[in-house]
Order: sequence, then structure tokens, then C-alpha cells
Amino acid sequence: MEVMQVLHMNNGEGETSYAKNSTLQRKIISVAKSMVEEAVLAILSENFPESMGIADLGCSSGPNTLILVSEIIDVVHSAACRTGLSPPELRVCLNDLPGNDFNNIFQQLPDFYKKLGQEKGGGFERRCFISGTAGSFYGRLFPSNSLHFVHSSSSLHWLSQVPVGLESNKEEQLNKGKIYISKSSPVSVVEAYASQFKKDFMDFLKSRSEEMVSNGRMVLSFLGRRSADPSSKEGCQHWELLAQALMAMASEGLVEEEKIDSFNAPHYAPSAEEVRMLAETEASFLVDRLEAFEIEWDGGGGGGYNDCAAGERPSKGQLVAKTIRAVVEPMLESHFSKEMDMDDLFRRYAGLVGDYLSVNSANYVNLVFSFVKKD
Amino acid sequence: MEVMQVLHMNNGEGETSYAKNSTLQRKIISVAKSMVEEAVLAILSENFPESMGIADLGCSSGPNTLILVSEIIDVVHSAACRTGLSPPELRVCLNDLPGNDFNNIFQQLPDFYKKLGQEKGGGFERRCFISGTAGSFYGRLFPSNSLHFVHSSSSLHWLSQVPVGLESNKEEQLNKGKIYISKSSPVSVVEAYASQFKKDFMDFLKSRSEEMVSNGRMVLSFLGRRSADPSSKEGCQHWELLAQALMAMASEGLVEEEKIDSFNAPHYAPSAEEVRMLAETEASFLVDRLEAFEIEWDGGGGGGYNDCAAGERPSKGQLVAKTIRAVVEPMLESHFSKEMDMDDLFRRYAGLVGDYLSVNSANYVNLVFSFVKKD
Repeated sequence: MEVMQVLHMNNGEGETSYAKNSTLQRKIISVAKSMVEEAVLAILSENFPESMGIADLGCSSGPNTLILVSEIIDVVHSAACRTGLSPPELRVCLNDLPGNDFNNIFQQLPDFYKKLGQEKGGGFERRCFISGTAGSFYGRLFPSNSLHFVHSSSSLHWLSQVPVGLESNKEEQLNKGKIYISKSSPVSVVEAYASQFKKDFMDFLKSRSEEMVSNGRMVLSFLGRRSADPSSKEGCQHWELLAQALMAMASEGLVEEEKIDSFNAPHYAPSAEEVRMLAETEASFLVDRLEAFEIEWDGGGGGGYNDCAAGERPSKGQLVAKTIRAVVEPMLESHFSKEMDMDDLFRRYAGLVGDYLSVNSANYVNLVFSFVKKD
Repeated sequence: MEVMQVLHMNNGEGETSYAKNSTLQRKIISVAKSMVEEAVLAILSENFPESMGIADLGCSSGPNTLILVSEIIDVVHSAACRTGLSPPELRVCLNDLPGNDFNNIFQQLPDFYKKLGQEKGGGFERRCFISGTAGSFYGRLFPSNSLHFVHSSSSLHWLSQVPVGLESNKEEQLNKGKIYISKSSPVSVVEAYASQFKKDFMDFLKSRSEEMVSNGRMVLSFLGRRSADPSSKEGCQHWELLAQALMAMASEGLVEEEKIDSFNAPHYAPSAEEVRMLAETEASFLVDRLEAFEIEWDGGGGGGYNDCAAGERPSKGQLVAKTIRAVVEPMLESHFSKEMDMDDLFRRYAGLVGDYLSVNSANYVNLVFSFVKKD
């Protein structure tokens, strides 16, 4: 499985698309909003640049993509009005892997620019240049010293590849019946995950440090955990239940068990301490601020279905399953073959999640780091 | 008809796609290659920049899109090897309207970078940053003073809109039974076309002059004419025959004649003299070199079907019809409704083109201008 090829959200605008099932990710963006504002204001207060480079890494597609851009534009525009300085030219780079639906983003732009012109006036929209860049953020994406602000939300918990040693073509499978770190996983599995994250995150910081100007700022928000234990439920339980759903299908002969044994999600939920230590080792950035917050698996707010009649409203289990499906389906399809019945899998998953939530509360832990690029 | 929305080539990779029917445009790129090389070398000889901004406007999608990028990279790489200087970082901006299939381009990039690394070595591929920008090149697309070289092939003969006065919602239709300038068109139609081109081309030059550095270079290649007469056959005949095919369908009740009366293609084939005068008026650029060349309607080389068995090879008429269909179908669909039988239309068109070519030779005239941005 080539992560570069298969890691993308469900494209299009259909029932199972990411565009229709990304309320959770939108909430995460909104919770981190104040840290984004603070970082952008800090950049402007140090030096009001004539031209300001901004990148959103793992921008995805659908309604969330331009929310961040809007927020930043609002902050910059207000700051310019307040100070009487003319606003900088904004170079906004939207990045995701090559399988992302960039067409969807680009088709939103004419309306976006039109609204910008109406709301801000003064030809502001003609000084905002939005572009798309396809590639992995674990390598270089942008010219040297070109970025003032970097943002990434709900993306850095994806690894560049399945951890070394756990790839599907290995003869011996170390993580049988599981698809991510589990209480029953051998230590070697946990180590493989942690060491892949370490390599990836260091590559990420190194690439960004080359692309960013001194005193540039970076706000990174991603799934993590509070516990020091990588197999603690907060980072693993949603994968655990997906493995259970797959194993139930295997027990009925609907999926080969070997296929489950050989699948390991290219994902890692680090602790804040791990991230902080990697940043210290890499040494290009200072941690300016760190926040951790919890968000319920179903986003806590009915996932945008509040207007539906009660009977049509999805259950909590169904909501969680829809959110996860929109994110992992292309990856599962690539590993398990297109013949696997995805509707069946996610019906089972919704059931398991529903059962689990009926006796447990379950939250994702989201870490938000604000970094400053050193001189 | 909003040109911004409907002017794009046939997407995808199907039988009628632009990706499969763009041999003619590839030939045009290859004929202009020497002028591109000359311009890029001129930039490098004046000042070997550390970072070089390059834009391809109207890049489209499919196999042609990255040809130009490859050519430029080759020139820059050889020049760097020859001089012993380290090659500049290349910022390559691929632009087209928001309806263009950017996903197709981005999915080609991993292989493109891989090949670049293999062929050039020395980490060259990590210093080449390709991005996509969606929007009309008749307005600003890029930050100020950011581009050293601008290129556009087979795009500037498309206007920003149907000429003012000839829009489909006008009460009086001035160009009945025709879809472009024709021998029988009233003077007001010819004037409307020329004046729309004038406005658009001046807007184009003004936008580029703001985006380009002093002494930056620009190679523009587009359909035009040698004759001073805008209704001469060389610029109009392929539209004339398409109008005939539509009128034949109208006479059988397959299309409403009023729909044909109200359609005018947002296209203009200028003379070199017109272009030169507009550039002089706008005054930001000097014409460094101008070439005009003819290219047969069918590209003169069998359109990539030379390997087919003789019986399967399309006729000249069919080849021309395929090329034109890949370019104008989305626009016709938007105006005439999806119910119009496109297969029927282009079968008729292929027949008319075949008949015409059996007694006439027919060439497109392609103009290639090389401009230098003044100090």
C-alpha cells in the first residue's frame, strides 16, 4: 500500500463523501481558531510584511478547506484596518496529497473571491493569491524562506507510510487481528509505530524549517493522547472497534483473516511530550504554546443532522461510522479489494461503536501546538 | 454563458477527452519550443536568479501539460551544468480556469518528480516546486514581481466572455445562423469581436506586467491570421463548417435555430499587427520576436493514429472533428443543453470537414510572440 496514493478522503459530494461528513474536523478547526489568530497577529506585530506566505498542509476538500483561509484573511484585514497599514499580499498555498480532490477546491474559488471582494472592499480580493500544491508534507513542498505562517489540522496523525516492519508484504505479521496499536500488540509493534512517527515528524520539521522565514509561526493540530502509554484507549479504541468489525466479517468468511493481519493503519496518536521532545531534538522551532482538548467521537453536536426529523437522525454509532468511513475508505479499499462490502463493514462498525458508547464515554484527544521558527 | 465556468477541455481520459485528442496542440508546443528555449536562456544570461518564477497560462490537463515544464527544466539544468552555477529553485505555476482537470495534473506529479530525480540527479527534483492556480488570466493570478518567465500556448485565442453586444440574452441577435465572424456577418459583429479581444489582451498584458520582474520574458502562442481581414477563411472556416453542421440539424428540427442565432463563440483569431499595436499601446512589453506558422487542420500527421490498422484509422475529417470536439463540447453543452446529440453533430461536422478538405487545403495560422518586460 503506497500511502501517497491511497491516503485521501472520500472524494465528491455523495452520501459517504468527506465533503458531507467532516463536521468533526470543522469543530477541531474552530477550537484551534484562537491559537491561529494569536499566531498570525504575532507575525504581523513583529513585522508587517508586504507579502505574506501562508500554507495549509493537509487541506483536504469540501466545505472545511477554505474556512482557515477565511479566518486568516479576516485577522490580516482587521489588523491592517486597525493600524492603517496596507494589507500584505497574501500567498495562500493549499496542500494535500495528489489523490486529494483539488478540483473541488478550485471550483469554490470564484465564489470565494467574489465574497471576499464584497466583504472587504478596496480590491482586497485581488491581493490574495490561492494556489494548490500536491505532495507529501514529509518532504519539501515550497521554495526556501517563502512562508510566514504554516497551519495543519487533522493531518499530522497520518504517517508517511505503514511503519517499517509492519508492511503488508512482510512474511511474518506481528499485529494479528489488529489494525493499529492494541493492548495485545507486541512491544515491537508499538516501537515500530513510535519510530515511524519520530522519523516522519522530524522530516516534517526539517522541511518546514527550510521553507519558513525566521520568526515564522506554525499551528499544528492533530489527534494525540494524554497518557504516556501508546496503547491507551484514547488513541486506539476507534481502531480497536474497526478491527472487531473486520474480524466479525472474517469469521463469516466475508474477509480473509490474513488480509486483516497484514493491514496496519499508517496513523499515530502521539503524546504532547513525544512531540515536544522531537521538536527539541530537531531544534529549528520553539514551542510557544500547547493545548490539548477533548472532543466527543460524534463531535458532540449531531454532526449537522440537527435539522432532520427525529426518525431520520443518525444514531451516535452511525455518525461516528460515517466520519471514520469518509476518511479511511480509500485506504481500506486499496488493501482489501473493491469487492469488500463497505456498507456491511460500516454497519457493523456503527453497531459496535453504539454498544461501546452506551456504556462508555469516548473522546478523541486533540493536541494543538503553536511553534515559532528560530532565528 | 459564463465563459469562466464553461471554457474547459473535455475532462477525463475517455474517447472524446482532450487528453486523448490533443496531438495538434502538442505539435504547436513543439514548433514554439525554440522560442521558449531562447527566452529562458536570455533570462539566465542576464542574471542567473536564485529562485525563478515560471507560469504556464492555460495549461489544460493530459499529456501536454508537463511537456513545457520539462522543456524549461532541461534548458535551466543544462545552462547550470554548462556554467557551473547551481540551478535556481524553480517555482512553476500551472494555471487554467477553475473547471480544468487539475486532479489529472497533480496525479501525474509523483512520477514526474521521480523521473526528474533519476534524469538530473543531485536532488534537482527537490528544488522544483510545481503548483496549480485556478482563475482567469485576464486578471491578476500571481503575486507582484514574482515571475521571470510566462508561457501560454493555444489559449489566448479564447476571450474572457462572448463579445459585448453578442451575448445570448440580447433581444436582437446580430449574427444569425453563424457562431463566429463570417463573410456574411454585419460589421457590428466584427467590431464587437475585435473590441473584446482588444480589452482582453490589454487586461492580460497589464496583469502580467504587475506579476513579472523587469526583463522577464513571455512567449505567447495562439491562433491568429495573416490577413488583415478578420473574416478571412484562415481564422473562420472551421467555425463556419460547425455552424453549417448545426444549421443542418436545425433544418431537421434537432436543434432550435434561435439557439444557434444566440450562440457566438468566445474566440478571436487576431492578426500579428493587431497584437503588436495593442502591446505598443499598453506599453509594458517590447516585442522581441514574432513568428507565424501554419499547421494543417489535422495536425498533418495522423493525430497519433499512425499505429492503427488502415481500416481503423480516422479520416482527416474525423480527426479534425475529434480535436475540435475535445475543446468546444463543454461550451456547446452548456448553451445547447445536454440533450443535443453531440455524436450526431460531430459526425456531420466530420463529413463537412472531409468534403471541404477534399477540394481545399486548410491550415490554422499560429502566431508566436516573444515579449520582454520593460524596466
